[in-house]
Amino acid sequence: MSRIVTVAAAQLGPIELAHSRAEVVDRLLALMRQAAGMSCDIVVFPELALTTFFPRWFMAEQAEIDRFFEREMPGPETQPLFDEAARLGIGFYLGYAELAEEGGRTRRFNTSILVDKQGRIVGKYRKIHLPGHAEHEPWRAFQHLEKRYFETGDLGFPVWDAFGGVMGMCICNDRRWPETYRVMGLQGVEMIMLGYNTPVHNPPAPEHDALSLHHNTLVMQAGAYQNATWVVGVAKAGNEAGVPMIGGTQIIAPSGETVAMCATTNDELAVARCDLDLCTSYKESVFNFDRHRQPAAYGLITARKGVREAAE
Amino acid sequence: MSRIVTVAAAQLGPIELAHSRAEVVDRLLALMRQAAGMSCDIVVFPELALTTFFPRWFMAEQAEIDRFFEREMPGPETQPLFDEAARLGIGFYLGYAELAEEGGRTRRFNTSILVDKQGRIVGKYRKIHLPGHAEHEPWRAFQHLEKRYFETGDLGFPVWDAFGGVMGMCICNDRRWPETYRVMGLQGVEMIMLGYNTPVHNPPAPEHDALSLHHNTLVMQAGAYQNATWVVGVAKAGNEAGVPMIGGTQIIAPSGETVAMCATTNDELAVARCDLDLCTSYKESVFNFDRHRQPAAYGLITARKGVREAAE
Repeated sequence: MSRIVTVAAAQLGPIELAHSRAEVVDRLLALMRQAAGMSCDIVVFPELALTTFFPRWFMAEQAEIDRFFEREMPGPETQPLFDEAARLGIGFYLGYAELAEEGGRTRRFNTSILVDKQGRIVGKYRKIHLPGHAEHEPWRAFQHLEKRYFETGDLGFPVWDAFGGVMGMCICNDRRWPETYRVMGLQGVEMIMLGYNTPVHNPPAPEHDALSLHHNTLVMQAGAYQNATWVVGVAKAGNEAGVPMIGGTQIIAPSGETVAMCATTNDELAVARCDLDLCTSYKESVFNFDRHRQPAAYGLITARKGVREAAE
Repeated sequence: MSRIVTVAAAQLGPIELAHSRAEVVDRLLALMRQAAGMSCDIVVFPELALTTFFPRWFMAEQAEIDRFFEREMPGPETQPLFDEAARLGIGFYLGYAELAEEGGRTRRFNTSILVDKQGRIVGKYRKIHLPGHAEHEPWRAFQHLEKRYFETGDLGFPVWDAFGGVMGMCICNDRRWPETYRVMGLQGVEMIMLGYNTPVHNPPAPEHDALSLHHNTLVMQAGAYQNATWVVGVAKAGNEAGVPMIGGTQIIAPSGETVAMCATTNDELAVARCDLDLCTSYKESVFNFDRHRQPAAYGLITARKGVREAAE
């Protein structure tokens, strides 16, 4: 058997502060059309794909921050993505900053959506593992204020029946945490899409910088293999506002093998015909959870957030 | 700062059915002496290191099975390991089949122990993720009857203060499961020792065979990085009783980098000076669990053993 989903991982080069939404959407449309021209079923864009990665700046004024957020999806500037997707018959994953009025208050999330080939939103995910810090830390070469500008996602890690399989989403730092993949794996996920903005330089631990691409590949390959799922990881890459960001956009099979990869840090597609049925032999053998998992031994994973003494 | 633990990963080539305990212990002693000669603090032996990997055969008679088990540790045949360790001032990890009389019944586990430089057992672990099957499956080229011959380990994944750091153990198939590393990571583990017997060929999924070394490295590197711990993975390797087993013995840093590796599938040491303080910058930055983990989103990991429909 085979259930082919042809996927384009649509890496973006830098988006500068001065770039308008319209300019960015034009770039996304160009990538979408390339993907459609290669018979792709879905094109995966990065995290926060509509603007520069704004958490690198401390901003005191909420109005200044909110310029980077979308109040509706689609909105006037993003509607062309949905229209073109429907016209071409291609789905997409898009990351963006979401401003929502919910429960009588304004909420802000680092969000992704999954859109089907008819241009309809079929899934929404709000980033759970926000990296960085909440307070201005001027000693850093640049800030990483996701913990300040976003709330922790409140939608869990759901999966969706779409594109002929079981689809999941996560965003950026989520990919470093095995729990992310496992919660979706326990729901039978067959393809996890994720976008990221990862600076090469991590100010609190610069001694890791040279390994950033190794770590990126390592965590996504492990998540794919250990949960018998495809993983599509897509970077916003290159030197953005003076901050070099890793590329490393890749499509990973349930075997843990990278089967397609970008070679630049610019706008670039990596494309693969992904057979969802390749998940099966892993899900039924080494990672047959029903046969082999031992949740009775995993209690600390949900009982405890951080490290404590062994004897409490 | 640095806290150096010099480790020898002591890979074993095949042990045939006809080999006596005394012959095997002599090989272990030779490796131990090599390690001591290189100023190692600890030598890590494989899983079930005292006999051939007997779960590859179906045996109906319990007495025949029990020949492969140790009724005491140390026993007459293993006492020389403890004596030589004390004499040389070197610790060791040893995997063996454990037969215990507990609670009025005979229990059998796939066990490892941690022995200090004075030859004293300071920790015991009983394998939790037993792979393979419980019933005779004659269609296989060889059996993998761990689920028949052993009980699931009942000691959890503890850690021990030893060798100047926080030490953990697991065994073989445990290493494929991110939960294994995470439960120890949540107790601040700094070095995880593990032995394995991994056939190249997996009868239920032969399409994975060519990837067996890739998977071995992938899961151990990911476990090391994602928990900011050293991992020492040690194979029983080579063609044992006609069944080729992978080597791939290696020592992995908290960066996820393999820093020492065996190049054969015979008796061979891989040695590294492991600085436990290299864990710190990972534990305090990207894998600062207290800052970044989100257990509220991880519920399924402990609530559910296998895959169910998303909507229950």
